[in-house]
Amino acid sequence: MRKELHFEKGEFQARLSAVKTAMEKRGIDVLMISEPPNMNYLTGYDAYSYYVPQFVIVSLKHEQPVWIGRFMDRVSAVMTTYLDDQNVHAYEDKYVHSATLSAFDVIAQTVRDLGGEKACIGVELGGYYYSAKAHADLIRALPEARFVDADLLVNWIRVVKSPAELALMRQAGAIADAMMQRAIDVAAPGVRECDIAAAVYYQMAAGTAEFGGSYGCAPPFLCVAERAVAPHAAWTDKPLPKSTTLNLELFGNRLRYQVNLSRSIAVGPPSPAFQNLADVAVEAMNAALDHVRPGLTCSEVESVFRRSLARHGLEKEARLGYSIGLGYPPGAVERTASLRKGDETVLQPGMCFHMMPGLWLDDVGIAITQSFAVTETGHEPLSSTPRKLFVK
Amino acid sequence: MRKELHFEKGEFQARLSAVKTAMEKRGIDVLMISEPPNMNYLTGYDAYSYYVPQFVIVSLKHEQPVWIGRFMDRVSAVMTTYLDDQNVHAYEDKYVHSATLSAFDVIAQTVRDLGGEKACIGVELGGYYYSAKAHADLIRALPEARFVDADLLVNWIRVVKSPAELALMRQAGAIADAMMQRAIDVAAPGVRECDIAAAVYYQMAAGTAEFGGSYGCAPPFLCVAERAVAPHAAWTDKPLPKSTTLNLELFGNRLRYQVNLSRSIAVGPPSPAFQNLADVAVEAMNAALDHVRPGLTCSEVESVFRRSLARHGLEKEARLGYSIGLGYPPGAVERTASLRKGDETVLQPGMCFHMMPGLWLDDVGIAITQSFAVTETGHEPLSSTPRKLFVK
Repeated sequence: MRKELHFEKGEFQARLSAVKTAMEKRGIDVLMISEPPNMNYLTGYDAYSYYVPQFVIVSLKHEQPVWIGRFMDRVSAVMTTYLDDQNVHAYEDKYVHSATLSAFDVIAQTVRDLGGEKACIGVELGGYYYSAKAHADLIRALPEARFVDADLLVNWIRVVKSPAELALMRQAGAIADAMMQRAIDVAAPGVRECDIAAAVYYQMAAGTAEFGGSYGCAPPFLCVAERAVAPHAAWTDKPLPKSTTLNLELFGNRLRYQVNLSRSIAVGPPSPAFQNLADVAVEAMNAALDHVRPGLTCSEVESVFRRSLARHGLEKEARLGYSIGLGYPPGAVERTASLRKGDETVLQPGMCFHMMPGLWLDDVGIAITQSFAVTETGHEPLSSTPRKLFVK
Repeated sequence: MRKELHFEKGEFQARLSAVKTAMEKRGIDVLMISEPPNMNYLTGYDAYSYYVPQFVIVSLKHEQPVWIGRFMDRVSAVMTTYLDDQNVHAYEDKYVHSATLSAFDVIAQTVRDLGGEKACIGVELGGYYYSAKAHADLIRALPEARFVDADLLVNWIRVVKSPAELALMRQAGAIADAMMQRAIDVAAPGVRECDIAAAVYYQMAAGTAEFGGSYGCAPPFLCVAERAVAPHAAWTDKPLPKSTTLNLELFGNRLRYQVNLSRSIAVGPPSPAFQNLADVAVEAMNAALDHVRPGLTCSEVESVFRRSLARHGLEKEARLGYSIGLGYPPGAVERTASLRKGDETVLQPGMCFHMMPGLWLDDVGIAITQSFAVTETGHEPLSSTPRKLFVK
């Protein structure tokens, strides 16, 4: 099977080296990574197989990580990772969704082979793909090991993106722009909500003429009229009325690197209140964006936005944004830095955020957002859709 | 906010009653449901919000379940569930992805309000959205409660679908058919893989002229040529060569009810070996389908398939199929009954399965599958795409 790698081997080795340094600092001998973006980050592994137990196991005693998962996904691991074949392990299909067998018995054997029987083992306790049952099974199978929480250890290393990663983020942003443009083109009275979602999905996969897109970490969120106050609700198959508002949040994804983008669209002339809310949101967002530079904290950036809003007598309860990058469902977020009060993370060049000054006021809501990378001197927008209320 | 319910209130009450009976039998006072399909099944709740902690809590002492989740998803809960407003609780945004605060402190207060402080609490230990950290936090917040594993308790109740649910499964099947037809129409030499994925996604959301589609529980799996042996790999943006094979697995979804469908497509004349493998797979699948009837076990149905394959000197390692129904990412499966050796689940009318005799032989693979419902006398196919190798 031919290797399909999207980064130089040296980049994977640098990532691994940073992870091993963090492990040493925390006294972790063996790190069991179950979060799909972290598995991808360290090895390149990419397949939609995270609904069964699988790990990338990093041992300080072993040069390369070991991938272990379901037998039928072994080929995906050989194909998408830089790992040597002997570092790709698998368990048989009889362990999948079985009431009597646990794949963790096989996985534990690999941990023992890596010298982890009595080790300090780091696991991602707060991850999406490491259930309470998985943890109990692993503890049972490795009774002499000591387990510690290594949740977010890798996430905090990947918070700063390399030049090669930033190149993919820019491509993801171009896909997000194309998706939004298609939605704006299609939205019109009489068009069913599901047909707008269809157009957005089409462009998500088709990407651009130069490069294709990947599946997003979440479906597009398409909220019409009063459903704006239910930001994560599913679209319906009702046709758009003659005059309405539509909030659309979508996710451009290139080889799992993701850029988030929201816009509000008015079908028919917007009410003055709605237009005003849009103007206020964009003004506050632009103020915060202009303020971004290395050395400031997330909290400081948020405070600029907060003060700008306050001048209009408004406030936003939800955080202003969050770190983005590699992503898998269900998370369109990295679970690290947030642009919010109290988050003292210091901005560094290469960090990427989705700034989302969503404002909901009773029955109207505005969602005009901007993803950006922190640069040496300020910020670089990762998408180029104009920051405004679109009117159809 | 107007209620958007897709079932009669009486149907929700019957489901709740069955769950309460199962709780009593197992000595569970309070059941904390975190699996999105189970939350939907019991209350109607549907929003893409499961990347943060949220529960439907059933207490034997309380008539209605209580929904608790993030404040911004509260409106979705009011809108999509039959619950009275006072049974919809929420925690503030400051608890989301916070390093210092835990939403489980708020959630525990709701459990205490429901009389669960010293109760026997059932949790879904093996679910996708109940992490090892979530379990530890909940135990810490409710130190006097006793926790037991109630994983799959609700899944096994929803394994038999009601007439109203079967109606949605048929609609999901019609969407799956439309998606497959579009892929077959589009597939041709020179077309990029991502553009075929785009066409499939378009139809997933657009559905049919009568009803729209919802997002699937997984992306379409589109595996060209030798990548057939990597069944869960991502599509690429390479153009199809003049002559190749393509395996496509896709998911038609109607209001979260999902029907799975796979077909192999030959671009250019198929090799005799590939055509023969397709014929063998279809013959064995048809034999197994013809055998389906209430009272038989899953294992018995699988054995018919296994014997048919064996006549051609073939065998399949992976299971032959699995129960389907309500679904959310990442699971295109219900995690209950499997069509495989040793699964002694007895078929009942209303059960639905995806039968998938995928056959992989070195570098060729065939995936021609059929989703079906068990009826009083046999089976009802849930999709109508012909069971054959398509040739373009």
